[in-house]
Amino acid sequence: MSTHTDYLHDREFVRTFFTTPTAVEGEDDSAKMLRGAAQLRGMEAPDVWVPDNEDATAPSMRDEGIENIIDVISEHGADYPGEIHPRMVWHRDSPATRYQGFQHIMELADPENGAIEHIDGVVIPEVGDIDDWKKADEFITIVETEHGLEEGSLAMSVIVESGEAELALGDLREEMGKPANNLERLFLLVDGEVDYTKDMRAITPTGELPPWPELRHNTSRGASAAGLIAVDGPYDDIRDVEGYHERMTDNQAKGMLGIWSLTPGQVVEANKSPLPPKTGSWLLEANGREVELNEEDGRYVYEGDRVELEETDDDQYRLHIGSNERDLDGDELSEALLDLTSYIPSLNDIVDSMEEFEAAKEAGRGAIAMERSATLVIDGIEVEISNDRMWDEATYQAAQTPITLFQDVYENRPDQHEDLEELYGEDIVERAIVVG
Amino acid sequence: MSTHTDYLHDREFVRTFFTTPTAVEGEDDSAKMLRGAAQLRGMEAPDVWVPDNEDATAPSMRDEGIENIIDVISEHGADYPGEIHPRMVWHRDSPATRYQGFQHIMELADPENGAIEHIDGVVIPEVGDIDDWKKADEFITIVETEHGLEEGSLAMSVIVESGEAELALGDLREEMGKPANNLERLFLLVDGEVDYTKDMRAITPTGELPPWPELRHNTSRGASAAGLIAVDGPYDDIRDVEGYHERMTDNQAKGMLGIWSLTPGQVVEANKSPLPPKTGSWLLEANGREVELNEEDGRYVYEGDRVELEETDDDQYRLHIGSNERDLDGDELSEALLDLTSYIPSLNDIVDSMEEFEAAKEAGRGAIAMERSATLVIDGIEVEISNDRMWDEATYQAAQTPITLFQDVYENRPDQHEDLEELYGEDIVERAIVVG
Amino acid sequence: MSTHTDYLHDREFVRTFFTTPTAVEGEDDSAKMLRGAAQLRGMEAPDVWVPDNEDATAPSMRDEGIENIIDVISEHGADYPGEIHPRMVWHRDSPATRYQGFQHIMELADPENGAIEHIDGVVIPEVGDIDDWKKADEFITIVETEHGLEEGSLAMSVIVESGEAELALGDLREEMGKPANNLERLFLLVDGEVDYTKDMRAITPTGELPPWPELRHNTSRGASAAGLIAVDGPYDDIRDVEGYHERMTDNQAKGMLGIWSLTPGQVVEANKSPLPPKTGSWLLEANGREVELNEEDGRYVYEGDRVELEETDDDQYRLHIGSNERDLDGDELSEALLDLTSYIPSLNDIVDSMEEFEAAKEAGRGAIAMERSATLVIDGIEVEISNDRMWDEATYQAAQTPITLFQDVYENRPDQHEDLEELYGEDIVERAIVVG
Repeated sequence: MSTHTDYLHDREFVRTFFTTPTAVEGEDDSAKMLRGAAQLRGMEAPDVWVPDNEDATAPSMRDEGIENIIDVISEHGADYPGEIHPRMVWHRDSPATRYQGFQHIMELADPENGAIEHIDGVVIPEVGDIDDWKKADEFITIVETEHGLEEGSLAMSVIVESGEAELALGDLREEMGKPANNLERLFLLVDGEVDYTKDMRAITPTGELPPWPELRHNTSRGASAAGLIAVDGPYDDIRDVEGYHERMTDNQAKGMLGIWSLTPGQVVEANKSPLPPKTGSWLLEANGREVELNEEDGRYVYEGDRVELEETDDDQYRLHIGSNERDLDGDELSEALLDLTSYIPSLNDIVDSMEEFEAAKEAGRGAIAMERSATLVIDGIEVEISNDRMWDEATYQAAQTPITLFQDVYENRPDQHEDLEELYGEDIVERAIVVG
Repeated sequence: MSTHTDYLHDREFVRTFFTTPTAVEGEDDSAKMLRGAAQLRGMEAPDVWVPDNEDATAPSMRDEGIENIIDVISEHGADYPGEIHPRMVWHRDSPATRYQGFQHIMELADPENGAIEHIDGVVIPEVGDIDDWKKADEFITIVETEHGLEEGSLAMSVIVESGEAELALGDLREEMGKPANNLERLFLLVDGEVDYTKDMRAITPTGELPPWPELRHNTSRGASAAGLIAVDGPYDDIRDVEGYHERMTDNQAKGMLGIWSLTPGQVVEANKSPLPPKTGSWLLEANGREVELNEEDGRYVYEGDRVELEETDDDQYRLHIGSNERDLDGDELSEALLDLTSYIPSLNDIVDSMEEFEAAKEAGRGAIAMERSATLVIDGIEVEISNDRMWDEATYQAAQTPITLFQDVYENRPDQHEDLEELYGEDIVERAIVVG
Repeated sequence: MSTHTDYLHDREFVRTFFTTPTAVEGEDDSAKMLRGAAQLRGMEAPDVWVPDNEDATAPSMRDEGIENIIDVISEHGADYPGEIHPRMVWHRDSPATRYQGFQHIMELADPENGAIEHIDGVVIPEVGDIDDWKKADEFITIVETEHGLEEGSLAMSVIVESGEAELALGDLREEMGKPANNLERLFLLVDGEVDYTKDMRAITPTGELPPWPELRHNTSRGASAAGLIAVDGPYDDIRDVEGYHERMTDNQAKGMLGIWSLTPGQVVEANKSPLPPKTGSWLLEANGREVELNEEDGRYVYEGDRVELEETDDDQYRLHIGSNERDLDGDELSEALLDLTSYIPSLNDIVDSMEEFEAAKEAGRGAIAMERSATLVIDGIEVEISNDRMWDEATYQAAQTPITLFQDVYENRPDQHEDLEELYGEDIVERAIVVG
């Protein structure tokens, strides 16, 4: 029997949620953007593509938007490499908007229009409490029945952009089991921080969005408890690639592995972000700031001035960190630097460690020490450091998340095989898809 | 039909919650402080004034406190510019305290005492889970019926100062609809961090209060989901004006726009804090610290030494940030500084942008670029920066929160009109009250 | 009548939760570690000792582990100074694992085996939503009935290591009252961040655990609302004593006063951490970093270079903090430094303040000012600072938490009396155990 935390859809991971306006006024072809996005491939193509018939499209263009979705997806949908989940109109406080959303879904899903066979589900924005989610679910059920589709076959993803919807995240697991709904169709829980900020009436001096760490935690936890996938909202400052990466790193530490993308450029960044790096790297905590060391001929060199090192005598060193200084012999120095460093493993490193642990387990050992060593260079002085980390079943399973994601990507995105092989090399890709 | 997120009371925003002891022993007139507070006006008068018959008043003085409230409010209540919500005694674990609270409310609300017509509601401290909130609600309903007041006409605000009460914040939306209670009377959700810290058994080395970010988030979310208003607890260090402002800025980013005030001086700060500034300002992120630039003749000058700039050749610059340095031409420099700066818009700026967007919308455009440019000066070198930010309906609505607050203040606090006009100028106040 | 927030077990506080493998393969005596741990005393012995028949023990050794627990505890249990709560196997997704756990508990609890009289309860890992907690509770009830033990006499602690279990923390208070379960047996709520990280599918670049502040808050709040005790999970980096202390300080500010310990060394640190220090100390906020001042002959000396002070004229001083400088007279300087300092009170200080407040209360005063003064030395210049802090009933009660904890330790851990007297002196221990 399945438990609620099994993933019921094809994808267990979604890195990217890319929205495109469905109809733009004033163009010769109002579906031009949609047509362009439908032909993206490889790293530029998202895991989930969202023709956006809500906020990205002017209200007056939304009926035309539905026709455009049908037009473009019936032509290009069969070849699209990701999943397709158009966003409909919906609002917890407006029956008229909800009814319009229902009519749009009915139209989209008409088999005679030729698009629905390529559509995986719909995205419902502006949901309220769980009873509001059920209204959308019920409309989709009716649409499925009317058009002879299997009940529950259309996925439903929601945008969490109100306090009520955030509270509903705690009810999902219980409600999804009830016979009077088909909430098992739920797929993505997507945060929408712009409208959430408005709904919460938050103010920041510069007008930038608050970070909302609790919302993201609650979304991720709701997804985890109900076998769904958590996705963060849009990052508006498109030029700020570094900021986008920092946000994704923060999200990943919360278990939120997917993010909205507004441009193909953001899609590329977000598709790559949760994958392990090609090469490992060492970080030095230099007086309160983490600095990546430069690899030179297999040694890792610190080039800043926040940490300084001098040899004061034979096997005697003085280590300066900010205004603090310590006199150490070689072993103490090695120990001190070990405490200040950390290592970011590559895909290769992770696969190596997993294979090693699997072999040990087969040989009847439950825990093994994984050694990691390096030569650091500070102010021209070389220091060897070496660390043993115990791996047991739990470490192994926690390390597995990026590999499981990698495998999910590999299985579901053949159009990215070439990119992955180019990025990591064929050999390591081959090993990564079978380990674990 | 109203939804639960409509605001059912006169005020949609409350900036200030000011408590005053109801009876002080050893004074000629035990109501002296109450009498003084009742006569505050303008920025010194809070949005919600709370004659405090609980913690601020000695247990032995609390019956006299009720008499004092009646005495002072029947005399001064008609002219008081804010709302009046006395705090009663209550405790989730003490039936005797709850019964005393009931008796006090009954006495306060007796129309023959002449105070109730000026009292907007009561504050109930130390509530537990939702069933405890219902006990207080029921007592208030009985008081209303006994005294011929309309059912639900007395507002009820609660102090959230226990784990149980924090959990109850998630039940409000569902419970407020039930026919067996009048919880629609709920008005403010006020955090009480001193007792909450005790209830959670938290310890800090210096004894200062923990920051409790999750409690404040949950209070703000509970308020948002149920159409209520979130207010933070007291800030004990009365001398620390800067710290009080930092706390308010942090709260505002959580959607918690109100705060407790212990003195008229704190009331002034808290009444002004969520209002946009009179003049805009530029911030520079200087090696990990945000610094406000000094305006001089329309240019914005950086005067610290965390960022340094030199011209190395014609249209060639070297930008030093900490130990990092970059060689840039003029365009790259402008781009780099744009990334490091942010702008805090003034009330005037916000009204301008909203008016501009409204005009664009009327002309059929759904999104427009708002330009913001400035001349920065670093180490004597002038650099022009310019930023386009896209505004769509969602940006517009999120920007509206401080304006809606401003309008709520203007409508409900005529005694502050003069202060506002002095602060911003009559012209901008006139525009701010009609925009949106 | 008891309320749910009363503590129903002997201990109201648990500082330490120390796990030991129950059976290690390849040793002459597979129970060797268990036998060693059973003989720990004083600060090396935890408040709660957990013979760990789950993750610390290989799956193939777990039946032998049960025999070892019985063997070691029937021999040493009578003399063990802390409570004993073995960890059983359990998994929300595996009926077979749950049944194995049931059988193990049945075996452990058989009075003929001679161990159960020394066992206080069991720890159930990998719980899911509240219905899963009830399954474990029901098995324990059946075991109690079969073996003639009083219903509810065996405590049950759980490891919170899934999103579902985190959500269940919000249901405890309501579910614990229901007649169809014995959930009043619940004792500890222990976070298990390794498996939680896996369950939430979180990724960090270095593989270190995310901090999960919301999980820890929710666990602490759940404990507070249901009269239980919150305990944080294991801190893997055993060499990093400073990091372990920082984590405990962070936990304590959340009301989570206990932590897992993996070694007797960690037990010592964790047993001492929530106790007030022997001597008070002054902190100076030196340009964004808190620095502890060195006590020299009753004066507190700042020896860094982040704050500088010079006398420019008679009673005129210049204070440099980073790139900021201010000219101040003696009074202003004293005021400025007061704002930058904070004091960590010793056990003695706390007892003094409480006694003083109790005396004042007896004399009919509800609030008193507590003075704290010191001589600071910066760059050789002496500055007197003095601070009055108001104490009322709420301050008194919040200050009481570390004292109540101290008293709970003193009452339940006679084997630590000597350590406490050595640490603080007999006199202050005598006063601390009676105050409040």
